[in-house]
Amino acid sequence: SDVTRHAFTLNRQTRERATGIRGAVFWVTGLPGCGKSTLANALEVELFHQGVHTVILDGDTIRQTLSEDLGFSPEDRAENVRRVSRVAQLLLETGCVVIVTLVSPYRHDRDLARSLFADGDFIEVFVDTPVAVCAERDPKGLYARAKADPTINLTGVTSPYEAPDAPEVHIDGTSPVAESLAKLLAVVTSRRAR
Amino acid sequence: SDVTRHAFTLNRQTRERATGIRGAVFWVTGLPGCGKSTLANALEVELFHQGVHTVILDGDTIRQTLSEDLGFSPEDRAENVRRVSRVAQLLLETGCVVIVTLVSPYRHDRDLARSLFADGDFIEVFVDTPVAVCAERDPKGLYARAKADPTINLTGVTSPYEAPDAPEVHIDGTSPVAESLAKLLAVVTSRRAR
Repeated sequence: SDVTRHAFTLNRQTRERATGIRGAVFWVTGLPGCGKSTLANALEVELFHQGVHTVILDGDTIRQTLSEDLGFSPEDRAENVRRVSRVAQLLLETGCVVIVTLVSPYRHDRDLARSLFADGDFIEVFVDTPVAVCAERDPKGLYARAKADPTINLTGVTSPYEAPDAPEVHIDGTSPVAESLAKLLAVVTSRRAR
Repeated sequence: SDVTRHAFTLNRQTRERATGIRGAVFWVTGLPGCGKSTLANALEVELFHQGVHTVILDGDTIRQTLSEDLGFSPEDRAENVRRVSRVAQLLLETGCVVIVTLVSPYRHDRDLARSLFADGDFIEVFVDTPVAVCAERDPKGLYARAKADPTINLTGVTSPYEAPDAPEVHIDGTSPVAESLAKLLAVVTSRRAR
């Protein structure tokens, strides 16, 4: 291996002191249509107004870009989660708030992601919405397509979703967005730069 | 494919207007030891003082994280460049200045990276340092190891480096860092938010 780490001057702490906020990775998991992106969007807009730099790593966008070569088998989902967690790790070093919105149905994969981070930096957010509610909302028409074609791979319908046992934040996906947002903002504002 | 793009409120333009600076991807290429990281570091520190958010995607760090599964064959190098370019693309959407420091020896791979970006957003920076100078500096001991063991894969010694034909910025890697930095800063400050 010809890999060695180059020391860069700017580190996370210096950057966090400039904004006053300690960076974090919000790992937002839940069924398709549960409200992950809506919540991430609300958090990002609010933090922008507070001058906090955010990056959303959105599952759909990642699938069209960084993970364009991957499918939806368990192995490919694991690799997708690995890549996203590694990017989140790189970004956390720049002191920003990273918001990952990814179905990430397997507990094992999410735990591997968590293992890359120091205690407190990885905040698992479970958007808990009954599958019937998700299927009714169906913002991308996925549930309708899966109903028409049972061979389609859809988490919560034809492939399993393993809910988090002890997420840092548990969101009731049927409650108002403003209420869920307040829970996440409370976490951000509690994390002052050291 | 169950991929569709979710519309997020904040876009690149809104973010760039907040900082006044148009984001960009500086793709810094050159031989090992040519001075890529030193230059990237100087640029990042200066932009931090100007309040511009930067992310360095450093080849060595990427090799230990996002691309930990890849080697140094032409195919693996191509995949490494693809991943880094996709991450840079995601980050550019947040209006920041992305600084990639990657040997990226093959013209074809760099051109594929460039093809992901709109005209003007991808700024290829060639740090042009004679291999003899790189080998003398040898900050990571790579040239010494390659001399002792000719089976080691080292760009510029045992594997080819295809220099850019028409880089946006041509840096003489033997000139003072301050001089090279000034060239890059001139590019940044010329890019005002629209």
